[in-house]
Amino acid sequence: MRRILATMPSRAYDVLVGRGCLAGLGSALTRRCPGGKTVVCCDENVAPLYLEQARASLNAGGYEVSHIVIPAGESQKNLARAEELYGVLYDRGIRRGDTMVALGGGVIGDLAGFVAATFQRGVRLVQVPTTLLAQVDAAVGGKVAVDFRAGKNYVGTFYQPWLVYADLATLETLPARELHSGAAEVAKYALLGGGELLDRVGRLAGGPLSAARVSQELVAGCVAQKVAVVAADEREETGARAVLNLGHTVGHAIEGATSFSRYTHGEAVGLGLRASLWLSRRLCGLSAREEARAQALLDGLGLPQRLEAVPGEAVCDLTRLDKKSGRHGVGYVLLDALGSPRLDVRVRPELEREVIEWLVKR
Amino acid sequence: MRRILATMPSRAYDVLVGRGCLAGLGSALTRRCPGGKTVVCCDENVAPLYLEQARASLNAGGYEVSHIVIPAGESQKNLARAEELYGVLYDRGIRRGDTMVALGGGVIGDLAGFVAATFQRGVRLVQVPTTLLAQVDAAVGGKVAVDFRAGKNYVGTFYQPWLVYADLATLETLPARELHSGAAEVAKYALLGGGELLDRVGRLAGGPLSAARVSQELVAGCVAQKVAVVAADEREETGARAVLNLGHTVGHAIEGATSFSRYTHGEAVGLGLRASLWLSRRLCGLSAREEARAQALLDGLGLPQRLEAVPGEAVCDLTRLDKKSGRHGVGYVLLDALGSPRLDVRVRPELEREVIEWLVKR
Repeated sequence: MRRILATMPSRAYDVLVGRGCLAGLGSALTRRCPGGKTVVCCDENVAPLYLEQARASLNAGGYEVSHIVIPAGESQKNLARAEELYGVLYDRGIRRGDTMVALGGGVIGDLAGFVAATFQRGVRLVQVPTTLLAQVDAAVGGKVAVDFRAGKNYVGTFYQPWLVYADLATLETLPARELHSGAAEVAKYALLGGGELLDRVGRLAGGPLSAARVSQELVAGCVAQKVAVVAADEREETGARAVLNLGHTVGHAIEGATSFSRYTHGEAVGLGLRASLWLSRRLCGLSAREEARAQALLDGLGLPQRLEAVPGEAVCDLTRLDKKSGRHGVGYVLLDALGSPRLDVRVRPELEREVIEWLVKR
Repeated sequence: MRRILATMPSRAYDVLVGRGCLAGLGSALTRRCPGGKTVVCCDENVAPLYLEQARASLNAGGYEVSHIVIPAGESQKNLARAEELYGVLYDRGIRRGDTMVALGGGVIGDLAGFVAATFQRGVRLVQVPTTLLAQVDAAVGGKVAVDFRAGKNYVGTFYQPWLVYADLATLETLPARELHSGAAEVAKYALLGGGELLDRVGRLAGGPLSAARVSQELVAGCVAQKVAVVAADEREETGARAVLNLGHTVGHAIEGATSFSRYTHGEAVGLGLRASLWLSRRLCGLSAREEARAQALLDGLGLPQRLEAVPGEAVCDLTRLDKKSGRHGVGYVLLDALGSPRLDVRVRPELEREVIEWLVKR
């Protein structure tokens, strides 16, 4: 098991990464947040697979355990579902010292996390990510939110968990498409970090992607990089945290333009990373060789080759809705070189249209 | 004009207290948050009185100004109204660098504050309190929330404003009942702080309450005390902030038991303060003389003498829903002496019933 200590301005907590460790959740939690009620929130896909194991472990840890199961999918990440969860917590008499356990992928982590952050101005929150995307990215760093209209994560807050507990064995049951989707965030950290992590992800991309080939070191490497970035700018005030937005400006716009249905978040981010690399070569001097290496890495991880079935114009329009966009347009995160991000690069609307067109036609 | 610097862990900001200073809002804001859009949120009572003055001042400060007017009353502090406000911000293309101006009392500050805190994970927030209650208490300290079912402030977060700008002249148009209601929070700070502030509030209670008799020194004194408490425990983690709960455990329960309609928040807190004094004499050794002095202070400020038209049993039940209650019952803030609070005093249910009965029969 790997342990990364996440020391954030607002709270310090452990990120534990293991394989086959779900049965240890209860005892890991008792050492940090003893006593009280726990409410496990998961979706209908995860419930039959891991809910009982999580419940049993929490029970053995001495917790009074209840659960909430909601339908699966990004469309659940809305205010109406949040309000329903508030009602459940209210009816069960949950108080601040009690714990919400978000067992699942990014949707559950964001939704249950937002509810935990705002119910009674914050109950305890434990993230138990069961997807690759959530394990390397979404469960760490404290961003919680629901979507609002076409605005992804438009209603949310910053709220660090008390513990992140990732069991790589849960990736075994992840649909192949979701595993590939999570690989997009892995690729993002590789492109941002370069060095050893890039080499490691390169090796992963060299063969068929499978849960067994995702190592604790790889997940821990991504987490450590995210933690370092977030610790320096927890609430996106200095701008430093924005490097994590690599690939996400276009990625979020693609999700919005397709009503969060055609592509998974990771697939959309994968396409966004491709766009960022293309732009980086034109605007930041990323070499053709490095761009080719990075595009090949995305190929090897099984990410989409091109943007399909989306009007390019709609994507361009939606980049302007990006939460990080300023009054003078969208500031992109691009790369001077692999492992060397540059913040807040202005991209002219013509070039934005051109890269989306390239993404459609390549 | 008085200036109190509120240095909180998450943000430092000024609290400015003046009389007839509303026209200076725009220039005070440009010095702190230059540029961007401002959205002034107020209710139907405040709009005809102060909206145009606030708008003109912000316009003169170079801001693009729009506004939202909602119906008045605590019943507006709900998730449906928050969702409506999200929609307005969304339609107007509000971004993180733009500013929500909460112009009004505690309801507007809490509701618009919660929306500002959560829209895009936080836009800028400026509190312009126009009631005595909001000026001495609600607008300072970063608590924002909406009510949920019978749970007051059950959905919310901690979000410090960028500026608090209080114009005592706005108290001239406050209904007498609201002025008296605000005096309950003034009394709370006097009872907690003792000393000079208690003497000052004692003098205020010695004559008929009027806006003209509320001084900048008095408001600034309450604010300074609140700031000191909140700075030491911004998110209610160490327990120190709980002293501000003096009178509020019973006060909130009274509000809940009467569906937030029979009493104003301040009136309910006034009754809660009376209960706290009664309990303090029995449990903490507050002297009979001091209790009498304090009850007389509440009389002088025109606060309700007794609890009317509420089943006492319902109030007792609702104290158990208090967000600050633990697994072993409600922890009250009581007073060893005037100016000397004691935290987390356990009150047996029988005594709780007895004090509510006293409050009904006195």
